Amino acid sequence: MGSLSSLLWALWYVLPAYFANASPVLVGGGRPIDGGRTWRDGRRLLGDGKTWRGLAGGVTIGTLVGVLQYYITPGYYGSLKTAVLLAFLLSFGALIGDLTGSFIKRRVNLPRGAPAVGLDQLGFLISALAFAYPVKTVSSGQMLFLLLFTPFVHWGANYLAYRMGWKSVPW
Amino acid sequence: MGSLSSLLWALWYVLPAYFANASPVLVGGGRPIDGGRTWRDGRRLLGDGKTWRGLAGGVTIGTLVGVLQYYITPGYYGSLKTAVLLAFLLSFGALIGDLTGSFIKRRVNLPRGAPAVGLDQLGFLISALAFAYPVKTVSSGQMLFLLLFTPFVHWGANYLAYRMGWKSVPW
Repeated sequence: MGSLSSLLWALWYVLPAYFANASPVLVGGGRPIDGGRTWRDGRRLLGDGKTWRGLAGGVTIGTLVGVLQYYITPGYYGSLKTAVLLAFLLSFGALIGDLTGSFIKRRVNLPRGAPAVGLDQLGFLISALAFAYPVKTVSSGQMLFLLLFTPFVHWGANYLAYRMGWKSVPW
Repeated sequence: MGSLSSLLWALWYVLPAYFANASPVLVGGGRPIDGGRTWRDGRRLLGDGKTWRGLAGGVTIGTLVGVLQYYITPGYYGSLKTAVLLAFLLSFGALIGDLTGSFIKRRVNLPRGAPAVGLDQLGFLISALAFAYPVKTVSSGQMLFLLLFTPFVHWGANYLAYRMGWKSVPW
């Protein structure tokens, strides 16, 4: 699926999505996005775990990561505007994927915080890649690498957050 | 993510994987691949749902679909050998992805047949795309389309199989 350098570029490309996906653990809390509303199945639309502060914080942190990335590798992005737009779309896409995942989890009646193996590790990634696609994408080999590698990053990061006491469950 | 024709070609490309993933429902049964063995957590390696007959039947059906595809669109494959190899790798990859999914589900203690939202719909697809990658791949836009569209195909096919009485659960 490509040389080592092409795999590292793939991780560099997607980095804002990783930060956006991880940051609600640290900056989250506050008012839930669904405002307590329920779906027609009587269950919560998204649940208390998805908050406006987590969404705004995740998009902000992910976009700032993109600004930093531009100053480290300006040639990869071409312009600051492209870097910021790409990082915003990767971050916003990651969080929309996460919210969609929560919506699906509530519909199949998984409680808040319960794991959905696959959806948790891949939903945010696929959504981020799709949102960012019109601005800049990666090769199909790089995309496959990200799909295969991200679950390990996700599990590693969540286990770390659990050991640091930032999360109450290790997933 | 591309024109309608490019999206239809993406579905044509991945078709053997869909057939391979669906066929154990019809041709499965028989001796479990794990032979009843357990992992160090005391739980089954894969479970009774994953059998040699399902694996062999899925690979056979998926590869035969590739032969048919060659005779319908020979120009897309270039040679019968490429079409057969591609279909074999897509089918084998899909079933390895499915077995890996079962292994993971047993480790997180989901019973046989319990759904893992995301893993069930995407694991077989990502594995199929990765196995087939060295022979022939699709563009990153086509790959994103397959990642976003396949869960709907999967749910639709499973619901159909349930209504036809081939499966005892609608997932």
